[in-house]
Amino acid sequence: MTYVIAEDPAATECIILDHGTGARLSRELVEMIAAELGPTYIGEMEDSAILALSGERLAITTDSFVVQPAFFGNGDIGKIAVCGTVNDLAVSGAIPRYLTLGLILESGLPMSALRRVIRSIRAAAEEADVKIVAGDTKVVGKGAADQIFVNTTGIGEFRRPPLRMANVRPGDRILLSGQIGNHAIHLLSIREGLGFEQRVKSDCAPLNGLVHTALAAVPEGAIRSIRDVTRGGLCAVMHEYSRATHCRMEVSRPHLPVLWETAMGADMLGVDVIHLANEGCAALFVAPDHVEAVLDALKGHKYGQDAAIIGSVGQRGSEGFHLTLKDGSVVEVEELLGAEIPRLC
Amino acid sequence: MTYVIAEDPAATECIILDHGTGARLSRELVEMIAAELGPTYIGEMEDSAILALSGERLAITTDSFVVQPAFFGNGDIGKIAVCGTVNDLAVSGAIPRYLTLGLILESGLPMSALRRVIRSIRAAAEEADVKIVAGDTKVVGKGAADQIFVNTTGIGEFRRPPLRMANVRPGDRILLSGQIGNHAIHLLSIREGLGFEQRVKSDCAPLNGLVHTALAAVPEGAIRSIRDVTRGGLCAVMHEYSRATHCRMEVSRPHLPVLWETAMGADMLGVDVIHLANEGCAALFVAPDHVEAVLDALKGHKYGQDAAIIGSVGQRGSEGFHLTLKDGSVVEVEELLGAEIPRLC
Repeated sequence: MTYVIAEDPAATECIILDHGTGARLSRELVEMIAAELGPTYIGEMEDSAILALSGERLAITTDSFVVQPAFFGNGDIGKIAVCGTVNDLAVSGAIPRYLTLGLILESGLPMSALRRVIRSIRAAAEEADVKIVAGDTKVVGKGAADQIFVNTTGIGEFRRPPLRMANVRPGDRILLSGQIGNHAIHLLSIREGLGFEQRVKSDCAPLNGLVHTALAAVPEGAIRSIRDVTRGGLCAVMHEYSRATHCRMEVSRPHLPVLWETAMGADMLGVDVIHLANEGCAALFVAPDHVEAVLDALKGHKYGQDAAIIGSVGQRGSEGFHLTLKDGSVVEVEELLGAEIPRLC
Repeated sequence: MTYVIAEDPAATECIILDHGTGARLSRELVEMIAAELGPTYIGEMEDSAILALSGERLAITTDSFVVQPAFFGNGDIGKIAVCGTVNDLAVSGAIPRYLTLGLILESGLPMSALRRVIRSIRAAAEEADVKIVAGDTKVVGKGAADQIFVNTTGIGEFRRPPLRMANVRPGDRILLSGQIGNHAIHLLSIREGLGFEQRVKSDCAPLNGLVHTALAAVPEGAIRSIRDVTRGGLCAVMHEYSRATHCRMEVSRPHLPVLWETAMGADMLGVDVIHLANEGCAALFVAPDHVEAVLDALKGHKYGQDAAIIGSVGQRGSEGFHLTLKDGSVVEVEELLGAEIPRLC
């Protein structure tokens, strides 16, 4: 049934898949929505909103998960839904406390599959030490959803000043907490039948412990801002920070932590790891004097063993994402318009 | 693609549409999910969870909306998404403050339709005086969702003790804040082409103002509990309270506020208004001494003009939902197993 489309037979501008990639079209769509909401919207376009309630500051974030495939080698949509929202809270400097769980189930979904998802949610929530406080379940007809969609909204509290993009300054160093591209290559391998999925696992993990470890290792303010590197990959994060700070982001490609099987898989698919989605990797912006301490703290954590310093923040007034190649040449990497590859999360 | 189903070729127990009706199968599904979540789940199976954060009590609720049709005579999925979540907070006695907005968009959705939904969200949020604090937008392929799904998660604060089902006592009176069945008949009329939709409008409205008016009219504690009468209709609410309080719920059918066109529409469709979903009607449980004051307060509000006293809470120890008919006879109304009619919200 097409009630909506019948509403507007002359509609030429439509939602397309590229609106969901995390690249430029995604950003423009979100900007349109924020503009239409007008003063009703008081978010800040960070991973979590920070707001006051009865005098306390809270972090709030929401995320819907439409993972395809919903089950993969070392995880499923339930694990991703918990980790994704926990990570959005953690990178804002908040302590994740509560999640809500909204399920949209397609008629015909095996109950055993649902149970498996719920058990993954429980396991991930236990690891991240968050509680599920409210839930909602809707069922739609066969063909009206893709098996299972999960929305998780998260609430965290602050025991230190929030980390915001605006804190980042020229000269700050940029770190990655782990390898990039593994989650995307794992899922793409399953989806496309490439046979990589045994050797490249998803990095999906709750990062609140890792973030806490890093923050505790250095004085307050030394870590300026953190972002989890999800949809749109490292490239989207670098462009986001460049726009927010009016500084150029300068990254060394040889310093990017990349598993060689992932590099090979990306090569076979003709994609660049800097655009690939991750579910357990964060980019950290750190004051230069404290970068080694943060790197050591990350490397001491089970989810940070492959952490690396990958670049630095350039001077103000010259935006963009510059990548230094192995031969020393520098290329400017544009923001993608839409998908380089099919959306993964 | 059917990754999930391939996981478990022997699966015989599957999600069916009746799991989404708000009746017994819905409840059993939610109980299974809560059981699997174990100690990770700390909700209370009320409309909102109440939890402490930095010493403050907050109300939190989440709801996904898969309304079919997404646009109707006097509203759309955006208005319902805001009102539904605002109402869940309001009936817990909280003041709704913040909403998050998760959108799942089907590829091919006209941008004009999305704009219309967002404008409805803005208008409803302005009326309810809530702010949108975080958002998320996902796009899925054509056929992988039904045009647009909306998740709204709401956060409210308490300036008075929360209203809970456990407060309800034998002898309390039961009120409805307005007519029942209008929303369902309006949507069913559009869906089935019955031609009623001009005369029966959806009751979709934010009820926080109405609830505040009622609470302010009587001493603290006089209004024991409030529930918005959505999926599953009045029958589901009565069974829920009966189970929670171990009291019989005794309602007079002639006292139910029902628009005559709605009664006629329900009759034509062979459904009973007590099972029909509403989006702007609340059931209130009130101490007998204060019931007239609450009724007057409701009737003085634009969304409460058709408020009525419909019954009372019976003695403990005898559960069930008893309906007194026009001729004085009493029938016991069973909880529905699944849908009497297609799901509407």
